[in-house]
Amino acid sequence: MSHLPEIDIPLLDHHTHGVIPTDLDYKQFQASFSESYLPPPEGTSEFHKPLGLVIRRFCAPLLDLQPFASGEEYVARRLELGAEEVNRRFMRAGGFERLLIDTGFKSDTILGVGEMSELAAVPANEVVRIEAVAEDVVRSGVDAAGFAHALRERLVERSRDAIALKTIVAYRTTFKVDQTAPRDDEVVEAAGRWLKEIEASGKVRLSDPVIQRATLWAAADICRERRFPLQVHSGLGDDVDLHACDPSLFTDFIRAMQDWKVPITLLHNYPFIQQAGWLTEIFQNVYIDTGVVQNYTGPSSGRIIRESLESAKFSKILFSTDAMALSELYYLGSVLFRIGLRKALDEWLQDGFLTHKDADAIIEDIAYRNARRIYNLDG
Amino acid sequence: MSHLPEIDIPLLDHHTHGVIPTDLDYKQFQASFSESYLPPPEGTSEFHKPLGLVIRRFCAPLLDLQPFASGEEYVARRLELGAEEVNRRFMRAGGFERLLIDTGFKSDTILGVGEMSELAAVPANEVVRIEAVAEDVVRSGVDAAGFAHALRERLVERSRDAIALKTIVAYRTTFKVDQTAPRDDEVVEAAGRWLKEIEASGKVRLSDPVIQRATLWAAADICRERRFPLQVHSGLGDDVDLHACDPSLFTDFIRAMQDWKVPITLLHNYPFIQQAGWLTEIFQNVYIDTGVVQNYTGPSSGRIIRESLESAKFSKILFSTDAMALSELYYLGSVLFRIGLRKALDEWLQDGFLTHKDADAIIEDIAYRNARRIYNLDG
Amino acid sequence: MSHLPEIDIPLLDHHTHGVIPTDLDYKQFQASFSESYLPPPEGTSEFHKPLGLVIRRFCAPLLDLQPFASGEEYVARRLELGAEEVNRRFMRAGGFERLLIDTGFKSDTILGVGEMSELAAVPANEVVRIEAVAEDVVRSGVDAAGFAHALRERLVERSRDAIALKTIVAYRTTFKVDQTAPRDDEVVEAAGRWLKEIEASGKVRLSDPVIQRATLWAAADICRERRFPLQVHSGLGDDVDLHACDPSLFTDFIRAMQDWKVPITLLHNYPFIQQAGWLTEIFQNVYIDTGVVQNYTGPSSGRIIRESLESAKFSKILFSTDAMALSELYYLGSVLFRIGLRKALDEWLQDGFLTHKDADAIIEDIAYRNARRIYNLDG
Repeated sequence: MSHLPEIDIPLLDHHTHGVIPTDLDYKQFQASFSESYLPPPEGTSEFHKPLGLVIRRFCAPLLDLQPFASGEEYVARRLELGAEEVNRRFMRAGGFERLLIDTGFKSDTILGVGEMSELAAVPANEVVRIEAVAEDVVRSGVDAAGFAHALRERLVERSRDAIALKTIVAYRTTFKVDQTAPRDDEVVEAAGRWLKEIEASGKVRLSDPVIQRATLWAAADICRERRFPLQVHSGLGDDVDLHACDPSLFTDFIRAMQDWKVPITLLHNYPFIQQAGWLTEIFQNVYIDTGVVQNYTGPSSGRIIRESLESAKFSKILFSTDAMALSELYYLGSVLFRIGLRKALDEWLQDGFLTHKDADAIIEDIAYRNARRIYNLDG
Repeated sequence: MSHLPEIDIPLLDHHTHGVIPTDLDYKQFQASFSESYLPPPEGTSEFHKPLGLVIRRFCAPLLDLQPFASGEEYVARRLELGAEEVNRRFMRAGGFERLLIDTGFKSDTILGVGEMSELAAVPANEVVRIEAVAEDVVRSGVDAAGFAHALRERLVERSRDAIALKTIVAYRTTFKVDQTAPRDDEVVEAAGRWLKEIEASGKVRLSDPVIQRATLWAAADICRERRFPLQVHSGLGDDVDLHACDPSLFTDFIRAMQDWKVPITLLHNYPFIQQAGWLTEIFQNVYIDTGVVQNYTGPSSGRIIRESLESAKFSKILFSTDAMALSELYYLGSVLFRIGLRKALDEWLQDGFLTHKDADAIIEDIAYRNARRIYNLDG
Repeated sequence: MSHLPEIDIPLLDHHTHGVIPTDLDYKQFQASFSESYLPPPEGTSEFHKPLGLVIRRFCAPLLDLQPFASGEEYVARRLELGAEEVNRRFMRAGGFERLLIDTGFKSDTILGVGEMSELAAVPANEVVRIEAVAEDVVRSGVDAAGFAHALRERLVERSRDAIALKTIVAYRTTFKVDQTAPRDDEVVEAAGRWLKEIEASGKVRLSDPVIQRATLWAAADICRERRFPLQVHSGLGDDVDLHACDPSLFTDFIRAMQDWKVPITLLHNYPFIQQAGWLTEIFQNVYIDTGVVQNYTGPSSGRIIRESLESAKFSKILFSTDAMALSELYYLGSVLFRIGLRKALDEWLQDGFLTHKDADAIIEDIAYRNARRIYNLDG
C-alpha cells in the first residue's frame, strides 16, 4: 500500500528521438525495440524479455486490448489502428511538458522536431548530435585544411535554434580517449587521413580519435558561449565496448567543462549508475538520467530509479525516455518513471527517511525543474 | 505470502563438476567450500559466511539434523553417514533432469561423468575444458611444429562424445587478451617457447597468450562444425584478476562467434551480471548463468537471480549450479535457484508486471528449455 | 515489523577523522558534508541530497529540533548551541567503544586523537597516514640519497604509539600502479626528481609512482613487524579516477601482504563493494568496510550494508563511520549502520536464512569483534 499519491505531473523529457510514422509488421516492430543488429535466435521473440513484458502490460490497454495481450495480437491491433493513431495515443498519454530531441540518428526514417511537437501537442526543441554534424561537413565537401573551420561554422549554424549539443564519443572512441583538445596541425593531418579513407571506402563514419576530440572541443566552446548543456551518451548501447563507457573514465573532460561552467548531462549510465551518481557529488556541472534503462529493465525499472537516487544530488537528476522509433517507448519511459520513482520515495517515506514535502520537491526537481534550470527554460 | 507455487520442475544443470567420493574431515570439508588457497584466519570458520549459513540451513535436514545445526555437528553427522550415502541423498534431492559436467579440473579426485550420472540417477554429458586438453597435448609429447595439429586432433577426439566445450581464458590471460586467431608461425614459436619452459620448470600450465588464442580458435572451429555452445568462465574465481574478467571485455571474440553462429554461454558473471545481461540483448549468441554465485551469496541469492533477470532476454538465461567437490553445492544451487526465482517472479506478479502464464514460461525457459535448445537436446 | 531487537551495542569505529571544534555558518556547514571542491550549483543546496535528508531527519532531534527541520533552521540552532556542545552531544550519542583516527588529513583544523577521545569519552588510537609522513619527511629537509632511510625512521617513530597505518595510494597513483617494491637506486632518483619539483613549485604533494611504492613498502614492512593492519582507501573520494580505484586492481599487493600476514582493510569500496566482498573470500588477509558510504547514501544505506553482506565472510567485515569535520557524520554513521544492519539481518531471518543466535554473532563480529582481533585489542 502506497502512502504517496500517483505522480501525475507533466514531465520534461530532456533526451529523446523521433518516432517512425509508418506502419510496422511483426518483424519490424520487434526489431524496433531491440538493440541488436540481428533478430533474436530462432524460436524466440523480442517480446520474451523485460521490455516485451511491459509493452504487453502497459501499452496494450491504450490500443483497446487487454493487459498482457500477446505480441501477435498487439502488432495486429497496432496495424489495424494505423501508426498515426497509435503514435498520437501514446505521445499524448505520456504526459510530457516538453521534448528535447536528438535529431542526429536515422533522421530520414523518423519524425523531426516540429512533427514530434505536433504529434505530442507540446513544445519540442532540438539537440544537435555533434558527430553527425562532423560527418555532414565532410560529406558536403571540405579539404583537410578547412575542416576545423567548416566544422565550427556548421556547429554554430546548427546550434542556432537548438537547445543543447550531444556527443556519442562513447560509441566512437570510447571514453578511453585522450580528453584534451588536439592541436590545429593534428586536426589537419587527421582530417586528411579521414578524407582519404572516405574516398577509398565510400563510407563516412567519424571514428578517428583526433577528429573526435576536435569535434568535442568545438562543441564545448559553443556550449560555453551559448550556456548549453552538453549531453554525453554513457554506458549501454547497441554496439559499444561497454567496459570503456563508464562515465568515470571521462573525468578529465568533465573537469575541464566544470571550469567552463558547461553542464554535462550523462545519459543512460547503465550499468554505471552508481559511478554517475557519485560524479554529481564531486563535480558541480554533472547531471544524470537513466533514459532507455527504465524501458529495457521493465519490471526492474524501480530498482534502476532507486539506484539513481542512491548517492546523486536530487538537483542533478533528470528525466528522459530516450525513446526512439516506437511511440510506445515514450509512453513506457514516462509510465515506468512515474511508478518507479513513486515506489522508491514511498519506501523512504515508510522507512522514516522522508517527508511528503521532501518527496514533492524531489519529484518536481527530477520531473522538470532541474531540466528547466539547466536548459534555460525558466520564466 | 507468495502467489506463485513452489518451483518443483526438474532442472537441467548446464555447467557443473564432479563430487568427491570420499569422506572429509572438518578441515577438509571447510576447504571444499572455500575459493581461497588458505584456511580462514585463526579463530574464524568457513561456516561463518553466507554459504556456510545456507549449508547449515538447507543441508542439515537432509542429514537428519535440525536446520542450522552447527558446523561441527554437521561434519560429524556427514562422516557418520559416509560420503556415498550423503552424496546420493543430495544428488537425488536436487531434482535435476540432466547434468553437463566439466571434466577438466581436479579430475583425479572427483567422480567422472558416468559415475555422476549413476549417483544422480539422471543422464549426464561431458563438457570439455579446452585448456586442459592443450596441457594434455604437450604432456603426451609433441614438438613445436606439430602442436597446432595435435591440439586440433585431440580436441576433435575429446569432443566426439561431448556436448560442449569450455574455456577458462579469463583465468589464464584474462579477457584483456588479443581476441583474434594467431598466425600459424606465431603458434609454432609460442609452442617452442612453452615446451622449453616446461622442460625447465617441470610444470605444465597454459598461460601464454598465443597458445591461449590458438586453443580458443581451434575450439571455436569445432563448436562451429558440431553446433556446440562454447562455455566461457566469466567473473569471480579463486585466482583471477577480477577487474579483467568482465565479460564485456570479451566482446570482440563474442562478435566473431556470432558470425559463426556459435552460442557463447557466459558462466557466473559476478559482479558483472548487469554487463552479461546486456550482452544477451546485443548479441544473438550470448547466454548467461549465475552458477556458483547463488551458493556463495546464500541469503542474498534472490538478489543475484533478480539481477540476472534485469535486462537479459528470458530465452538467454540458463540454470547451473557450478557445483564442485561437495554434493551439498549441487543441492543448494538447485534449492536457492528455486527459492530465488520464485521470489523474484512473485514480486513482479504482485507489482502487476507479470501473469502466471508468463511466469511459467520464464521458469521453464531457464530451468531447461533454453539449455535443451542450444545444447541440441530437444526431441 | 522487525523481529530483531534494535542494535544498541557499542561500536568500534576502526576508521575515522577528527571533528572541527569551531562554529560553522550555513555555507561552511554545507561545505563540510560535500566531497566537491565547489559549492552546489546556484539555487541548489547540499541539504537536497541523501546525506542532507538524514542530517535533517536524525541529527535535528539531538539539537532539540523537530525531525526534518530545514537546513537553515538546523544551522541556526547549531550556532546557537555552539560547536562544543553540539560535538559533545553527537559524539556521546554515537555509542562508540573506541575510535581509530586517521590523523594525516587537514590535521590543523580538526581535533587530534586525545581531544577526540575526551570529546567522545572513549579510548582513541592513532592511524598514521603514510603519504602524509612521506610529505613531512621532505618538508623537514632531506636529500635524495637520504630519503628512503629518513622515511623509514619517521614511519617507525610515528607508528610507535599508533595502532595501524593507512595508505591513500588510490588517490595518488590509483591502483593501476606497479605494485612491487622499487629498487633503492630508483628511489634515490625519484626522490631527487621530487625535491627539484618541490623547489620549483613550492608545493609538497606525493604523487610520483616510485615514491608512492617506496612509501607503501616501507609501511608494509612496519605492519609486518608490528602486526599492524594496513588500511587502504578504496573506491569513492573527492578527487579520484573512480574506475582506477576498484580494489580488485590492487590484487598483486594484497597477495604480497597475505604472504607477510598483514591484514588489509579495504575502506569505503563504493561502487566496488561486491568486488571487495569477494576479495575477503579469496585472500586470508582482506577485510572491508563501507565507511562514509552509509552517510552519503542516507536512505539507501540499508542496501549498501546488504551488499557488504552479500559474499563477504562475516569475520571480515568491519564497522567505520569515516566521519570527518562534522560530529553529525559520526553519529549518522553509527545510526545508519545500526538501522541498516538490523534491517538486512531481519530480512534474512524472515526469509528463514538465519537464526537469532547467528544474527547476534554477525552483529557482534562487525560491531567490534573483528576489529578487536585484527587491531590486537583483545584482552
